[in-house]
Amino acid sequence: MKKIVVIGGGTGNFTVLSGLKNYDVDLSAIVSMADDGGSTGILRDELGVLPPGDVRQCLVALSNSSLLMRSMMNYRFENGGLGGHSFGNLFLSVLEKVTGSFEKAVEEMGRILFIQGKVIPVTTHQVRLKMILNDRRILEGEKEVYLSEEIDRGYKSIYLEPYPKANPHALFEIRNADLVILGPGGLHTSIIPNLLVEGVSKALKESAAKKVYVVNLMNRKGQTTGYKASDYIQETARYIGEDIFDYILVNDQSPETQQIESYREEGELVENDMPEKRVISAPLLGKIISPPKKDLMKRCLIRHDSQKLAHELMKIVNYL
Amino acid sequence: MKKIVVIGGGTGNFTVLSGLKNYDVDLSAIVSMADDGGSTGILRDELGVLPPGDVRQCLVALSNSSLLMRSMMNYRFENGGLGGHSFGNLFLSVLEKVTGSFEKAVEEMGRILFIQGKVIPVTTHQVRLKMILNDRRILEGEKEVYLSEEIDRGYKSIYLEPYPKANPHALFEIRNADLVILGPGGLHTSIIPNLLVEGVSKALKESAAKKVYVVNLMNRKGQTTGYKASDYIQETARYIGEDIFDYILVNDQSPETQQIESYREEGELVENDMPEKRVISAPLLGKIISPPKKDLMKRCLIRHDSQKLAHELMKIVNYL
Repeated sequence: MKKIVVIGGGTGNFTVLSGLKNYDVDLSAIVSMADDGGSTGILRDELGVLPPGDVRQCLVALSNSSLLMRSMMNYRFENGGLGGHSFGNLFLSVLEKVTGSFEKAVEEMGRILFIQGKVIPVTTHQVRLKMILNDRRILEGEKEVYLSEEIDRGYKSIYLEPYPKANPHALFEIRNADLVILGPGGLHTSIIPNLLVEGVSKALKESAAKKVYVVNLMNRKGQTTGYKASDYIQETARYIGEDIFDYILVNDQSPETQQIESYREEGELVENDMPEKRVISAPLLGKIISPPKKDLMKRCLIRHDSQKLAHELMKIVNYL
Repeated sequence: MKKIVVIGGGTGNFTVLSGLKNYDVDLSAIVSMADDGGSTGILRDELGVLPPGDVRQCLVALSNSSLLMRSMMNYRFENGGLGGHSFGNLFLSVLEKVTGSFEKAVEEMGRILFIQGKVIPVTTHQVRLKMILNDRRILEGEKEVYLSEEIDRGYKSIYLEPYPKANPHALFEIRNADLVILGPGGLHTSIIPNLLVEGVSKALKESAAKKVYVVNLMNRKGQTTGYKASDYIQETARYIGEDIFDYILVNDQSPETQQIESYREEGELVENDMPEKRVISAPLLGKIISPPKKDLMKRCLIRHDSQKLAHELMKIVNYL
């Protein structure tokens, strides 16, 4: 069975994993530990736990449990002191408190949710994502980076504080993979934070796995304004140390004009400027969905279709 | 297999059920729906759910799941917006939100916790416990009744608002029981609220089951100050319509002087003034335990031992 490692965090990971789950492959999700927004941020502050949000999304994506259990894990409280919390985040955080270990908690929750595959935090250390802008201001935490509208003007540096060692299980998975998938996802908030962990870039370069980058559909305004496919590859390569990608998967399906219009305030379509042989272009758009009412952060409405994405990725896997 | 029905709410129920669970009996817990204090009160207000606290305690008492799962369900958040919430309460409330039915949620949580027996809310209607004091002041809600220090001066009436119909499953269990157990527990806050539900007293009177009352160890100051065993029976009979008890179980073991001293501010020992044949007296004291640090309400430190209690109750069962 082919071994596939998906690296990222957030909704992008969720989409890739949900699609690939339906195939007969050995799946591992390596998840960024930099999230500190919304429900996750509150739990980090109040309980001192590691960030549950991205891990929870991956666990639910890989879950084969009942619809009821998955609905519970995605349930979001609307009012009062609990308002904004995802129940799944609370579940994972309480498991961490009761077992005394985030990794054990993730493992146990995986068992309870009958997940297919593995979910592995990229590091098990508490870290904050920081970014120094060109004017020397420091953005503290993933949420501040995510909400900034100045990143596209360039920045001096991005780093995790303190500089964390990788989870050895994450490095093992990368080294032993047949295929490693990066993206889609927030470049500075979900992808790069994995590469800022000691040992990850080295493992990626040394692994014999084929590597594929799934380019985002849309640029987020102020974050990656004007980025083309090649910019995603170059920016990622900057942190890995070289361009490692054997395949670059881009969407070639245009959303309806009305969709692009309604998205204009948040960003624009990513253009494919790479006519190279390694670039695979395919129609990858999902159906338009409405975001959850009380979601703490705005999320992209134009999304990848998990089945189309998995279909293209599996063509690569079958070619390996 | 003998069919045993335990009626009450809160810690008293937990103790009886935890003990009886170890015997080969068919157990049902009928649980008061009047709780509105602490974590439960907040969830009722913020989510509009039925009160989870007492039901959750019974589910955990009857659970055969892993220690990890039971520890999770008893986990209490300490800080911030989540502070004071029991995770098990959140679990049950989210299940209610997701399934759309409190009864279904209780059933589902019972399945997840591998409970032995059944937990049945005495009513599935939203109710408030109210008490009119002699000076015509109205205590609104179980929490206010629980915290009042004037009840022992007498009161005009106690009732549920709106007057609720019983859960038919609760009536069925009472009518088909071999033994019905009331108490121990807060007389006005855990026991009587069950009897204020339409149909419950009638079912109790008509049921061919033997009935046993487990008298509290201690009187709570301002609540049942000076009550003797006979007062518990009389006060309960007032709401059932007659004295239905075939057996009255009282403790005859004295706590250490130091324990009584440290409890003096909260109340005093219940004296057994009933030298009748139906009264069974036995040593029933448990080991002294410390209450949870951040418990929202004070709880009694002098408690029944669940095993001793179950042992005496099983003598009655075996005699049936």
